[in-house]
Amino acid sequence: MTDQTEFLAGLADNADAVTKTLDGLLIESDGHENRVIEAMRYSSLGGGKRVRPFLVTASADLFGVDRRAALRAAAAVEMIHCYSLIHDDLPAMDDDDLRRGRATCHIAFDEATAILAGDALLTYAFEVLADPETHQDARVRADLVLALSQASGHAGMVGGQMIDLYAEDHELDVPEITRLQRMKTGALIAVSCDLGAILGKASEHARHTLHNYAHDIGLAFQIADDLLDVEGDEEEVGKKTGKDQAAGKATFVSLLGVERAREQAEILSRQAQEHLEIFGEKADSLRSLAHFIVNRRS
Amino acid sequence: MTDQTEFLAGLADNADAVTKTLDGLLIESDGHENRVIEAMRYSSLGGGKRVRPFLVTASADLFGVDRRAALRAAAAVEMIHCYSLIHDDLPAMDDDDLRRGRATCHIAFDEATAILAGDALLTYAFEVLADPETHQDARVRADLVLALSQASGHAGMVGGQMIDLYAEDHELDVPEITRLQRMKTGALIAVSCDLGAILGKASEHARHTLHNYAHDIGLAFQIADDLLDVEGDEEEVGKKTGKDQAAGKATFVSLLGVERAREQAEILSRQAQEHLEIFGEKADSLRSLAHFIVNRRS
Repeated sequence: MTDQTEFLAGLADNADAVTKTLDGLLIESDGHENRVIEAMRYSSLGGGKRVRPFLVTASADLFGVDRRAALRAAAAVEMIHCYSLIHDDLPAMDDDDLRRGRATCHIAFDEATAILAGDALLTYAFEVLADPETHQDARVRADLVLALSQASGHAGMVGGQMIDLYAEDHELDVPEITRLQRMKTGALIAVSCDLGAILGKASEHARHTLHNYAHDIGLAFQIADDLLDVEGDEEEVGKKTGKDQAAGKATFVSLLGVERAREQAEILSRQAQEHLEIFGEKADSLRSLAHFIVNRRS
Repeated sequence: MTDQTEFLAGLADNADAVTKTLDGLLIESDGHENRVIEAMRYSSLGGGKRVRPFLVTASADLFGVDRRAALRAAAAVEMIHCYSLIHDDLPAMDDDDLRRGRATCHIAFDEATAILAGDALLTYAFEVLADPETHQDARVRADLVLALSQASGHAGMVGGQMIDLYAEDHELDVPEITRLQRMKTGALIAVSCDLGAILGKASEHARHTLHNYAHDIGLAFQIADDLLDVEGDEEEVGKKTGKDQAAGKATFVSLLGVERAREQAEILSRQAQEHLEIFGEKADSLRSLAHFIVNRRS
């Protein structure tokens, strides 16, 4: 594992590079449609830790992938993440005013623009991946699109969000919550590693191993999120906390209690790091991320 | 041109085949996420003329494309079309209760489910295109995704929808309305022909010619739509009419008057048919469609 300070500097550098890539991709227009591009930029250039993009580039690094290709794939994943936040924050969904310490998209613009900005970011993610600029091998491009769409759609992230809405009026047990979270947040985290492996034309074995790592940190990440919702400081977290409890929603924390949930997150984080053994020192940044994920305060 | 009765039978047969393809693709789940799949099915299997899918399969036929591949690409385009209708009908957008003679998705389900169903259909369209089941050549798959995403996003359909919202409070002139419509409806109509050409690995010249055809019928289609909004029978059209006028929106009809608008649509339809000369009789169904588009009553 790299030193924590060094890791945080690397995470911040990568976040900057991803923001620059997004900035270069989201080109303003002089037509009246520019408002939707402004909203796309507002919601994707505003910061965030960029954990998913970090997973893409750190995984790509394992296989010596060209940095520019990795950053474009990382930007595509972040577009999907940002679109999902825009739509989740809408009045008809979670009805949130605050995100990453700023007004949510539909507050800063309006609801219609926010819906369209989400749609456009979702669409653009696939355009970027399918563009020969991302990779010269069409097989790689098609595989990137296939993996990201599978992780994001009704059998992945969107399906998880649907279950999450169902959970507002129904009590889920631990296996059901696990499935919910695997779809809602785990799928996009797992595919982030996958995209790196696809770009690097990794062996089935390497890809599978990386997938196991991603699976574990995905769940650890979610448990840490649930803990932050209970224990985090609203200003530091950058969004409203205590929401799950207020909504009467079952989470890992409500089902397991704070202590056992924290233990579980730590077990998953260690297990994730063990999967990385086959990659040796090259995987140090992924190890540090697994550590960081369960120890973050926002 | 084929006989109109024969054409209408072919259009209906093709619509059935597309519906069957969609039905086979949208597989229900026994998990709690099934509600979003039900909403996707509700909004995509409910009928419609399936003009865009017809353009995909008729264009693909020019180049001898395998029927199954063409139908999958046609289904993908229809998913994009259906997602756009679901989101456009939302209270924050056009706030429509009626679509294709049935309750709109957010009325039949709820707003949150409708937002997610739109997101999931949009995502699934790209998954279907990127899947090796659609075409064995990865270059074709990546090109299908690239073309459809470009037509659907902020520089295409979504951008057009943004301009349409802008037009609610601003007066647009004919060139601006033309640009709006080219983006909002024209781009998806044009790319429908494009997908057929990509599947058939058509020459640049054939692809370009087909694009000119699609461009003309796209505009003709929109003018005919504007005319239906003014003159159509609500029950026959299957959605509320008189909306543009009530909203004070500039359309081709409000700017040109009914007579000149109808003339313009007919000129575009004839011009579209002339582009098809290089394809000979093989393009008869596309000729009939150009005729149908400006003479339809719903």
